[in-house]
Amino acid sequence: MRQHQIRFTIPTQGKGLIEITREVAAWLDDTGIETGLVTIFCRHTSASLLINENAASAVPRDTLRWLDQMAPEGPHYEHDDEGPDDMPAHLRSVLTGASLSVPVGDGRMLLGTWQGIFLAEHRARPHRREIVAHVIGE
Amino acid sequence: MRQHQIRFTIPTQGKGLIEITREVAAWLDDTGIETGLVTIFCRHTSASLLINENAASAVPRDTLRWLDQMAPEGPHYEHDDEGPDDMPAHLRSVLTGASLSVPVGDGRMLLGTWQGIFLAEHRARPHRREIVAHVIGE
Amino acid sequence: MRQHQIRFTIPTQGKGLIEITREVAAWLDDTGIETGLVTIFCRHTSASLLINENAASAVPRDTLRWLDQMAPEGPHYEHDDEGPDDMPAHLRSVLTGASLSVPVGDGRMLLGTWQGIFLAEHRARPHRREIVAHVIGE
Repeated sequence: MRQHQIRFTIPTQGKGLIEITREVAAWLDDTGIETGLVTIFCRHTSASLLINENAASAVPRDTLRWLDQMAPEGPHYEHDDEGPDDMPAHLRSVLTGASLSVPVGDGRMLLGTWQGIFLAEHRARPHRREIVAHVIGE
Repeated sequence: MRQHQIRFTIPTQGKGLIEITREVAAWLDDTGIETGLVTIFCRHTSASLLINENAASAVPRDTLRWLDQMAPEGPHYEHDDEGPDDMPAHLRSVLTGASLSVPVGDGRMLLGTWQGIFLAEHRARPHRREIVAHVIGE
Repeated sequence: MRQHQIRFTIPTQGKGLIEITREVAAWLDDTGIETGLVTIFCRHTSASLLINENAASAVPRDTLRWLDQMAPEGPHYEHDDEGPDDMPAHLRSVLTGASLSVPVGDGRMLLGTWQGIFLAEHRARPHRREIVAHVIGE
């Protein structure tokens, strides 16, 4: 059994979903792990990770609008000194989560046909986000 | 250290929560792993996994009604070409998540007394859902 | 490759977020694992785990108020025989999740600067909550 780890820096353009499936898959391929477990972790509290449909481009747009509704901006937050988009960004991160685990088989992440891994940027302005990927297996 | 992996196909009857704790526990028992980590992964974007109380049958019913409210059907989605229940199903999957990890001790998943593992079907019609379970340990 | 596991009992004072980063980090340090994967698991269906900003004390307060809104108490639940805060506690647990995974590098969890690990107590009265932490690595 062995393990590998990598850090990705993903530049974001403000609020949006960025698919990172290909980057993670390419790294996994390089590790040569055939069977195991991949874990992906987002090192931020105003960006997060989620799995979503990767085919129809309207799905990420609807998902972003839904996240806006689930934790809307507004004057009702006590924590507002980092801008009106900051506390909603923390809440959307809590809602979606910082870590994802995906089993590996035949050298590939066992994602379903329509599953993509997305980094969700919840802040209004561009950021550079750090993602750690870890795999253990053989 | 060693690892095992299995794929389950779970038939669903349309929207609902289906407990799969027993299936996962029986497989884990067969692996003979005493201490380790189980990860369960749902290979879909309109079905998902969650841990919920497994005693009172009203809990899953309330949970389903709540999921209906959190991401209601309606004319406000841009992605609507796969039916009115499709985009809400994606959102409910994002809300609840595709992966779950549970530590193993004394040969069993260390779930609490009232915790059950549930597959959540978010589409209106029956589907066959693929779940991957992975364990690493010894 | 080796693994370690520990159970923490965390007393809660009723609804609130309790940071447990330090406890998990101290245990991880004792294990001597330099590179690997930590998984933390909450053995309850009315308490859960989340990652949130650990700097501004208003963030947990806003997060708790948001959780109150996302799954409010009320007469609309079928499951109400364990008190008005019970079903909302289950739903808030589903929303936030029972498990978290964090990669380990240089002997430390690779949390971002502002990330803290929190146990979320969703019941109104104090409880004793059991958390399992598992690490695999070397």
